[in-house]
Amino acid sequence: MEIGLVGLGRMGLNLAINMLSHGHRVVAYNRSPERVRVAEKEGATGAYSLDELAAKLAAPRVVWLMVPAGRPVDEMLDGLVPHLSSEDIVIDGGNSHYQDTLRRHATLSQRGIRLVDIGTSGGVEGARNGVCAMVGADPEVFSFIEPLLQDISAKHGYLHTGPVGSGHFAKMVHNGVEYGMLQAIGEGFELLERGPFAFDLAAIARVWNHGSVIRGWLMALMEQAFRKDPRLDGIRGVVHSSGEGLWAVKAALDLGVPAPVMAISLLVRYRSEQEDSFAGKVVAALRREFGGHPPEPAAAQGAAPAGADE
Amino acid sequence: MEIGLVGLGRMGLNLAINMLSHGHRVVAYNRSPERVRVAEKEGATGAYSLDELAAKLAAPRVVWLMVPAGRPVDEMLDGLVPHLSSEDIVIDGGNSHYQDTLRRHATLSQRGIRLVDIGTSGGVEGARNGVCAMVGADPEVFSFIEPLLQDISAKHGYLHTGPVGSGHFAKMVHNGVEYGMLQAIGEGFELLERGPFAFDLAAIARVWNHGSVIRGWLMALMEQAFRKDPRLDGIRGVVHSSGEGLWAVKAALDLGVPAPVMAISLLVRYRSEQEDSFAGKVVAALRREFGGHPPEPAAAQGAAPAGADE
Repeated sequence: MEIGLVGLGRMGLNLAINMLSHGHRVVAYNRSPERVRVAEKEGATGAYSLDELAAKLAAPRVVWLMVPAGRPVDEMLDGLVPHLSSEDIVIDGGNSHYQDTLRRHATLSQRGIRLVDIGTSGGVEGARNGVCAMVGADPEVFSFIEPLLQDISAKHGYLHTGPVGSGHFAKMVHNGVEYGMLQAIGEGFELLERGPFAFDLAAIARVWNHGSVIRGWLMALMEQAFRKDPRLDGIRGVVHSSGEGLWAVKAALDLGVPAPVMAISLLVRYRSEQEDSFAGKVVAALRREFGGHPPEPAAAQGAAPAGADE
Repeated sequence: MEIGLVGLGRMGLNLAINMLSHGHRVVAYNRSPERVRVAEKEGATGAYSLDELAAKLAAPRVVWLMVPAGRPVDEMLDGLVPHLSSEDIVIDGGNSHYQDTLRRHATLSQRGIRLVDIGTSGGVEGARNGVCAMVGADPEVFSFIEPLLQDISAKHGYLHTGPVGSGHFAKMVHNGVEYGMLQAIGEGFELLERGPFAFDLAAIARVWNHGSVIRGWLMALMEQAFRKDPRLDGIRGVVHSSGEGLWAVKAALDLGVPAPVMAISLLVRYRSEQEDSFAGKVVAALRREFGGHPPEPAAAQGAAPAGADE
């Protein structure tokens, strides 16, 4: 097939290479032109403007967006749509909120442009060698792009999840599950690390990934990480998040689904991002007031060192 | 090798078959003799008493216990030990608490009997075709039984985790991680099921198991379960637990490890076992008292139906 690929970040570029390796023609565009040149070296046809991108694609065009969720997608669509025609297909392969996808679908439909939402999983490695694709699309649009999906996905790794929006919804839930699984794995290894035995954590990850109930890719990655750094001494336990876990928790709240593990996994991440916590200060202050338990002094503002008399 | 296998439940019997299929001689004992006869049909040498079991094994004996954790292990050891000699090896392949294991190790050591704790994972399927084995043992004892472990484990599926006790500790933590992963998966599918799209849940499980970040055996089992019952209509959402998750949470509390996902996963199971909850009654009662929010009437004791005026 012929695909216009917009957004050549880590995921986008690897996806382009994946497509090229399966004989597809990729017309590659990126806001900053250096990445276009990188894609050209990989065999893509470069496009240095959205106008050029559209001109280099035969109708009906298939344009795959791989840009960050939110405003960047809307801005890219604003720039792209004037160059597109009725029947063209726009694939949003990023982590858009499914309600944004539904809104964009309504807008694009008025021009006859067909939106497809693909939630992708599998990391950079998946983008390069076989992605997991959750595809929301009208059936005939899905059929049209299916040969491409078959090529770039892992075996059995793509699914027509339902109408437009369902792909991003499924991906959002996937990430909510992922948050919980990651936190469970984190807690487990902290327990091993703090327990009475001096475990070889890489070896534990490895054995857990061979024959156990909890075997899976995350355990393989865990072994890999511990092989690099047996006690993860080089890493701080600060965990950021990019939105999908939050959306999953919000969706659970909206739908009345009790999802405490997703929620707590998200909140533990938030706590990990704080150097100190106001809630913690409040609780420590109250314990001092009612029980005389001395709080730890604040570290900031040139306070006296913790051990100093006063 | 020659192994005495004590306890021919689902796990024990399948383990026996696994050992036999690799050419090991298995002397099989079970409290109720019917299972011994089943094992004999599979090729094991039957033993109808612990005396007979010991007599049919050459020294140093290797006796693998596969009996429920707690008192049954102690009772079985009480019956077995008088028939054993110094240098014999007892393997506890069940889900014993690691502190029980340490206690038994101390007792057995006085008689020169060498205890090995093997935490096993992989379910019945693993027991039959390749188990995941976390092995706590003295190094020379581990070496002695390693050829057996190599045969009955999944590829790369056994590990000498450290001294006696470490195998059961690792298995306990494994199950804590499993509780969290299961709950995360449960929440994810409930979100899909309650959300705005009519997902084919078996198909989602399948695509998530091919190329996604959360791929693994649990997702394969999830597909299998949804293939049998697309909406799990035949199953109540009541989840019992057999102790290891509780121990993992207790260990986290003892060690000061913040493990909220393990804890909440356990507590959600407890709530699922309740038809009604006293905490819920209390909260509903207080909401009535301060806000006039009408509580739902109790279902029991011939109360008026929910909709009735009174």
